[in-house]
Amino acid sequence: MPEIYYPQLSNNALPVTHQIDVVDEKGRKQSISIPGERALTIYLDKKEIVTLMTLGAAPEALVLGYLKNQHLIDTIESIESIQVDWETDSAAVKTHTPKSNIDALTSKRIVTSGCGQGTMFGEFMADLDQIQLPPDAKLSQLAINQIIDSIRVHPSIYKQAGSVHACAVFRVINQAVELLYFIEDVGRHNAVDAITGLMWLDRQEGENLVFYTTGRLTSEMVIKGGQMGIPFLMTRSGATQMGLEIAQKINLTLLARCSGTHFLIYTGQEKILLELENTNL
Amino acid sequence: MPEIYYPQLSNNALPVTHQIDVVDEKGRKQSISIPGERALTIYLDKKEIVTLMTLGAAPEALVLGYLKNQHLIDTIESIESIQVDWETDSAAVKTHTPKSNIDALTSKRIVTSGCGQGTMFGEFMADLDQIQLPPDAKLSQLAINQIIDSIRVHPSIYKQAGSVHACAVFRVINQAVELLYFIEDVGRHNAVDAITGLMWLDRQEGENLVFYTTGRLTSEMVIKGGQMGIPFLMTRSGATQMGLEIAQKINLTLLARCSGTHFLIYTGQEKILLELENTNL
Repeated sequence: MPEIYYPQLSNNALPVTHQIDVVDEKGRKQSISIPGERALTIYLDKKEIVTLMTLGAAPEALVLGYLKNQHLIDTIESIESIQVDWETDSAAVKTHTPKSNIDALTSKRIVTSGCGQGTMFGEFMADLDQIQLPPDAKLSQLAINQIIDSIRVHPSIYKQAGSVHACAVFRVINQAVELLYFIEDVGRHNAVDAITGLMWLDRQEGENLVFYTTGRLTSEMVIKGGQMGIPFLMTRSGATQMGLEIAQKINLTLLARCSGTHFLIYTGQEKILLELENTNL
Repeated sequence: MPEIYYPQLSNNALPVTHQIDVVDEKGRKQSISIPGERALTIYLDKKEIVTLMTLGAAPEALVLGYLKNQHLIDTIESIESIQVDWETDSAAVKTHTPKSNIDALTSKRIVTSGCGQGTMFGEFMADLDQIQLPPDAKLSQLAINQIIDSIRVHPSIYKQAGSVHACAVFRVINQAVELLYFIEDVGRHNAVDAITGLMWLDRQEGENLVFYTTGRLTSEMVIKGGQMGIPFLMTRSGATQMGLEIAQKINLTLLARCSGTHFLIYTGQEKILLELENTNL
């Protein structure tokens, strides 16, 4: 067993866009790209857990992150292998020592599998108190602008085909901005779960990281960001009141409407070093 | 009991937006509106079913539509009352004759409560064959333009606060376009479920109707549209490949990228009467 343990993962990303012929309002034929969408049923030690609808761009990472965010698997070391098979639209997850209480764990999800949710919201809320974010984290306006620009120029399914959400994680040290992860999926929840999976595999801590999403910051997106230990959340879109309240509760800095050089600080202003402040230092 | 039966429904819509103070990239304070987001836990005959995260603009309709789309309730007549209580964030649904197999029904959801899903996808797919849409339905370009314009000028939470999705249903008879329902929520699945609930209450058939959404037409949105018996789906956004495939399978006409006078016909071109065709008649 290597010093850092990795489960055996298949590498079955799908071709993510498809060409279709459409007709516009003037009757003109066009060929456009649209994103794929596939059902992926997760089996944990042969027990059927959930069916996710996904773009299929990072299925193994999605499964990993889903299992972690659902509290169905506690440690990466407990996972022996994940085999994604698109012939059967299934992901077989094998653990070293199957949990005996898996039924109890999964049955809880019934009460929280809501629209746009599909996660154990109750558990998340209970976990909020345990979230510890780096208290003295700061983010400069220059870094914010670099992040927005990096997303703008990054090749994406969205630019080709639309109808997907992207999540990205950046490392910011001093003024140096580095893109660590970029994931797109048909649901913003899948995209953030896949990021969670990649960070879990890499044992990536949240310190010095910024989470960016094209999607709306609803309660659950903010909670997942916090659970990754990431102190800064940025969205091209907006946030809901509960998303904001949770961010305030866990001292997570939330920036919305990030576009070009524009952004709105919803909470955590003291952690954002605006140029005007910098010049006053 | 009246000729048309209505369950007793509370009328507990929430104030849907909240003013917050934010700071922009130049350090300027602004006051903006953001949408509310509340947890609503549904109890069916005292059994906890699900927690939905919702804007709260039409909670009773959301609960109705959710129960119908989840196949948890078969007839509107079987529902005695729905009481939404925001003190406890709960919706108490009382039926005349509680189902004995409710555990079996809800346990099935475990396997399909995916991200952005929260619905019994497997059952939906099984139901596809039963969907019968009016085969000779037609929609004129003039009506399409009127629908897009009607949405453009309709007052909305989105215009105030962003971060919500809208679903609307229009009746089109000859060239006359009438807005029947307009619902916004933090998740597009909630919005379509609430529309389902309103149509169910009104015994509204899908004939002559057009469903419009600001959200992406993923598989589930298309299936729900088809289950409402609505022959035309329009979105300001795009569609996924599975959404398109399902639309083709059930002869549902799908228009995407609807904006201004522009739209793309993804499938069902023969049902769309473009101006150029009209002039040739």
